Amino acid sequence: MPLPDLDSFLSPRSIAIVGASSNPAKIGAVPVRYLVEHGYDGAIYPINARADQIEGRRAYPSLRAVEAPIDLAVFAIPASSVDAALDDAIAARVKNIVMFSAGFAEMGKEGEQAQAEFAARAKAAGIRVLGPNCLGFMNVARAVYATFSPVVGTGANEPGSVGIVSQSGAFGAYAYAMSRERGLGLSAWITTGNESDIGVADCIAWMARDPATRVIMAYLEGCKDGRKLRDALDLARAAGKPVVVVKVGRTELGALTAASHTAALAGDDAVFDALFRQHGAYRARNIEEFFDVAHGLAVAGLPPNKQVGLLTVSGGVGVMMADEAADAALEVTALPAAAQAMIHARVPLAATHNPVDITGQVTAEPDLLEATARIMLGEAGHGSLLIFLAAFGATPAMRILQQQMAQALRNDFPGRLIIFSTLADTAQQRALEAAGCLSFTDPARAVRVMAAMQFFIRHADRVSRSDAETSWPGAIAAMPAPQDASAAPGPLRRVAHNEADALGTLRAYGIPTVPFHRANSPDEVIAGARSLGFPVAMKVLSADITHKSDVGGVVLDIRDADEAVAAHARILDAARSSAPNARIDGVLVARMVRGGVECILGARRDPALGVVVMLGSGGVTVELLGDVTFRLAPVDIGQARAMVGELRTARLLQGFRGKPPCDVEALAEAIVRLSRFALAAGDSLESVELNPFVVLPAGQGALALDAVLLTAPPATANASSPAFAPSVSF
Amino acid sequence: MPLPDLDSFLSPRSIAIVGASSNPAKIGAVPVRYLVEHGYDGAIYPINARADQIEGRRAYPSLRAVEAPIDLAVFAIPASSVDAALDDAIAARVKNIVMFSAGFAEMGKEGEQAQAEFAARAKAAGIRVLGPNCLGFMNVARAVYATFSPVVGTGANEPGSVGIVSQSGAFGAYAYAMSRERGLGLSAWITTGNESDIGVADCIAWMARDPATRVIMAYLEGCKDGRKLRDALDLARAAGKPVVVVKVGRTELGALTAASHTAALAGDDAVFDALFRQHGAYRARNIEEFFDVAHGLAVAGLPPNKQVGLLTVSGGVGVMMADEAADAALEVTALPAAAQAMIHARVPLAATHNPVDITGQVTAEPDLLEATARIMLGEAGHGSLLIFLAAFGATPAMRILQQQMAQALRNDFPGRLIIFSTLADTAQQRALEAAGCLSFTDPARAVRVMAAMQFFIRHADRVSRSDAETSWPGAIAAMPAPQDASAAPGPLRRVAHNEADALGTLRAYGIPTVPFHRANSPDEVIAGARSLGFPVAMKVLSADITHKSDVGGVVLDIRDADEAVAAHARILDAARSSAPNARIDGVLVARMVRGGVECILGARRDPALGVVVMLGSGGVTVELLGDVTFRLAPVDIGQARAMVGELRTARLLQGFRGKPPCDVEALAEAIVRLSRFALAAGDSLESVELNPFVVLPAGQGALALDAVLLTAPPATANASSPAFAPSVSF
Repeated sequence: MPLPDLDSFLSPRSIAIVGASSNPAKIGAVPVRYLVEHGYDGAIYPINARADQIEGRRAYPSLRAVEAPIDLAVFAIPASSVDAALDDAIAARVKNIVMFSAGFAEMGKEGEQAQAEFAARAKAAGIRVLGPNCLGFMNVARAVYATFSPVVGTGANEPGSVGIVSQSGAFGAYAYAMSRERGLGLSAWITTGNESDIGVADCIAWMARDPATRVIMAYLEGCKDGRKLRDALDLARAAGKPVVVVKVGRTELGALTAASHTAALAGDDAVFDALFRQHGAYRARNIEEFFDVAHGLAVAGLPPNKQVGLLTVSGGVGVMMADEAADAALEVTALPAAAQAMIHARVPLAATHNPVDITGQVTAEPDLLEATARIMLGEAGHGSLLIFLAAFGATPAMRILQQQMAQALRNDFPGRLIIFSTLADTAQQRALEAAGCLSFTDPARAVRVMAAMQFFIRHADRVSRSDAETSWPGAIAAMPAPQDASAAPGPLRRVAHNEADALGTLRAYGIPTVPFHRANSPDEVIAGARSLGFPVAMKVLSADITHKSDVGGVVLDIRDADEAVAAHARILDAARSSAPNARIDGVLVARMVRGGVECILGARRDPALGVVVMLGSGGVTVELLGDVTFRLAPVDIGQARAMVGELRTARLLQGFRGKPPCDVEALAEAIVRLSRFALAAGDSLESVELNPFVVLPAGQGALALDAVLLTAPPATANASSPAFAPSVSF
Repeated sequence: MPLPDLDSFLSPRSIAIVGASSNPAKIGAVPVRYLVEHGYDGAIYPINARADQIEGRRAYPSLRAVEAPIDLAVFAIPASSVDAALDDAIAARVKNIVMFSAGFAEMGKEGEQAQAEFAARAKAAGIRVLGPNCLGFMNVARAVYATFSPVVGTGANEPGSVGIVSQSGAFGAYAYAMSRERGLGLSAWITTGNESDIGVADCIAWMARDPATRVIMAYLEGCKDGRKLRDALDLARAAGKPVVVVKVGRTELGALTAASHTAALAGDDAVFDALFRQHGAYRARNIEEFFDVAHGLAVAGLPPNKQVGLLTVSGGVGVMMADEAADAALEVTALPAAAQAMIHARVPLAATHNPVDITGQVTAEPDLLEATARIMLGEAGHGSLLIFLAAFGATPAMRILQQQMAQALRNDFPGRLIIFSTLADTAQQRALEAAGCLSFTDPARAVRVMAAMQFFIRHADRVSRSDAETSWPGAIAAMPAPQDASAAPGPLRRVAHNEADALGTLRAYGIPTVPFHRANSPDEVIAGARSLGFPVAMKVLSADITHKSDVGGVVLDIRDADEAVAAHARILDAARSSAPNARIDGVLVARMVRGGVECILGARRDPALGVVVMLGSGGVTVELLGDVTFRLAPVDIGQARAMVGELRTARLLQGFRGKPPCDVEALAEAIVRLSRFALAAGDSLESVELNPFVVLPAGQGALALDAVLLTAPPATANASSPAFAPSVSF
């Protein structure tokens, strides 16, 4: 992935502020003041044709007048002035521009065009651009304040290890203030605004390589380039830097594309969800969790294992913590018998399984607390420990005891995650954080942080596989050639394909389908059916008829040649009278398949995010209950197996109520091949749906009984709106 | 419901402290000190045989020596001394006892018996008891401190309108401290400990009648008497006092009773969930939400309508709020066109639909904020308004502006719920609360509070119906007589009943079942089948065989007399060889029923909570997806209809994919009748399950195809563990 010059942007040695001003009401006054006040140690060049000095620095009439290298130019000027300023910037060999100016793509068509023209000119000159319509950025440790956000004026953040990138300026400013309130030190803070050039993905990639950043927080409203985002997330994962994201808009786009139920299921947001999960980024559900998780990571780091210990002075709240932990699928592992005996020896009435309840006895013997914690971290080996202290933990003596415990336990059990849950004032929270421990009034918040930690532990294991994943353009080239080259898709035809074409195309890519023949006459019908063996099913073949059953275009269970000929005539009559304008390509004769478990498989090309592969349970459950799961292609066999396991109705496939287990491996293999097919089809694919896709008992395979394929010519594929075909079944 | 004397307990005119001490290390020292320090204005009688004075008050050697009326005696003494103290209390005509003493039921069998004996003696003497093993209680406004919890010593709470009752002392103390931190004033605070007499339900009922209490917070770990709890919740609802509950243990009991899948589905916690919902108590998911909701209710009260307005200065966070609101099913109603035009007139780029985004323009024109809020509360009539201000809201000028807005808007729009979301320090939060407004850093927390408010608004509408509900013993008497008196259940037999008996019993209570005949010979088989009309189904009749299909005991689609005779012989042979020891009561011949949608209906008696009625979707969905819903009996027709609507697969019943709508009214009526039957069966019912219960197309009714009935003799019913029968189908 081509990356902009990180140093010249985030750590410029010289900054020019175009539109700098001595009038504090002007936005051009702000960055100069921030830079001077915070002691930026590079060169500062205020640009203002009508001033000699600004904030005690010599002012220049234009960028050209500086006559020294300019790493970064800040455009604090109206949209009407940017073209001239860009001329100057090009002439002055400016490397990077931060563009506060509003009045571009956010204003509509005209602004969009102006923005595109500006971006193209900057790109041609080799200048990278942040914005327009953004609040700029800060590199906190190096006192680079290329922002006019007033939030810095109300109090600056400490340097630290968390990088924040936000598409929204308002949210970015809020996040800055929240970090400050929490004492969460920042490395970099970037708002990307209209993203004419540099986007959130670029910033994540930067932060993945920035030595000061250890944890990355990203706020997204959308994404223009899924490939870049995925690569950036993989870079961060490979660098061992957890990424916590908030993505807004769970509902809006789903509604827009809900032309069919499958389209709604595969809505934009579900795809983002799959993307984040697949690339190891943790998606926070709200602002509180966003900060709780990032803060926890920055303060404590990831624990060394997934085992969680729960320690409480209240049995009831112990149960509450266990409930929360169960909901979050935490591994609340029981203490070994010997460890339980050690606790019982001191507290006969203690619950020692996990949660461990040392009861009110701790008020008489406060040292019980650390002793028990040591047993849980030591003998039981819990990687994380949550300690609920109720009101008892808020007394002055207990606050000191917790601080001492925090120090001692982190010292003797390095890297363990230790969270206290009690009332703690800000000073107490900071003291515990200084020792690498966390504090939450509500243990439920602590459990959610522990759950996020486990997410990262799970995904850290997958870095190597993820590296393979990211090489997907290569994967296409390395893909096996279609089994039947003559049937392989050349330039695919546009829009809908008839069922036989769709099934044939899929089969050419190794996706198993029901055996079938096309037939255009009674003789062909009989020959086809005989070669398949009776009973057979027969369906009208027409790209123009999607609901074949509704027009009488489907006959099942045809038992002999006479029935077949009659069915053929009936189907053609029915189709012609119900859909007189439809193009009829004859009929499809297919073997009757009985038994097995029905699923739905699909893939569609999302113009921004790439190819999305879907697996759903069949029948009514997919429609009524949305029992579906997604991955971005390519999907490897391990991911495909995981998809099967994620279905809520997965047990149906595993041999339910005495039925034989299904051929899950054949299903997983079909998912992998469908993903390869969809990638190979490239921009010409709009969507493909295999419904039903029947999974037979183990060893007997799995096969598509019907398929709908929608394609578009490569030239227009990116512009067309993605849509799954309506569901078709026979 | 018999209620203890509220005044003498919560507002005693005289308090004796048995075990009072001048040694501050003793728990008997604490209540005397609290009472004196906080200026309790009634009589204080320290009881201590070896002291003349305690805390400057005359001490008495025993309760008998006081020789004045004692409304409340606090037992701050070891378990070994309580019997003698009770003798004295009875002699001194003490009205109420608070018993801190530990060493009773929480210690095992022996302690349990001692507790029961103490409670019985107190009850016989007309003395009410709180505890033992509790932290006591406080009436904050009247300075009644009948507690030894150290949490009061670290800072006292302000008097206010929130009553807290907790079974757990540790949680109670924590809740006290959290209330103090939040500035949430308390009316009463009660911990109930072992609940030998007074339980959480009594306290809720008290608070429902206590003029100082407006909002009730209840923390439960279990419940011994569901009837009392339901009545108490109804009292609170009738008094217009919202109840917010936390109930711990979502998982433990479910696992214990998971002998069959249905039992697991109807686990203890699901029943609590139904109970709270049915009686209008809001169940908070965690401690933070518990306080957020109660605090919100105390500060702002319920808004006058369910319409919610979302106002933001950040488009992205507006979308985030809309997502949260959609998840919580809030009514985010669009602004009228005229109102939208008014906003557009000032902010051309504003989003005005709802969320309303007034954009960064508000930083230049802060008065936009109140102007827009007035349009939303006024023209749009939103009952609740959530205003997200990002970091902008945290500047000193904006803090003042918010305070002024809060005052002005609550003045001009009384009762509206107005929540600011920005960074607010404690002083700012208190200032906004003083004006009746709320403040949350994370708008998601605000949305959850608004959702809880809507829950209460919905349930407030149902008070009148709820009054009818609570008269359920009467409802049994008023129930129509069984349609066929001869078949009505007398004293039901114990344990399993055969299918014909079960179906006959249910039919006698007006629950529709498949038409059937018993048959003990080939002639009876033929006669039965002919009177029903072929085709018929035939099943072995045996209370000892639950899985009839597995033993070859079921034959479907019998088309004529010959097939019937053959099936009869085959079934009896198969049953005798597979289950040689089973008692065979002949066969059941039933009409074949085709079509319709399968459900499962059930009821079971929970020894603590009463009769639980269950509706689930049929087939695999109930088992795989737990698509079930519960109510406590009696279930009226409106509640039964609501249950149908709560199924995730409800659409299957409403005419799905072109199928005819089902007879939902017949299903609802069957639920009502099943609830009546289960109540009428009284303690003799263990469980009844109708599976499948088929709902035919509208107008054609609904009927049970199979039933399993388990009963127990009345004497042992309460002791037996409740269990649904394993599912049986043919």
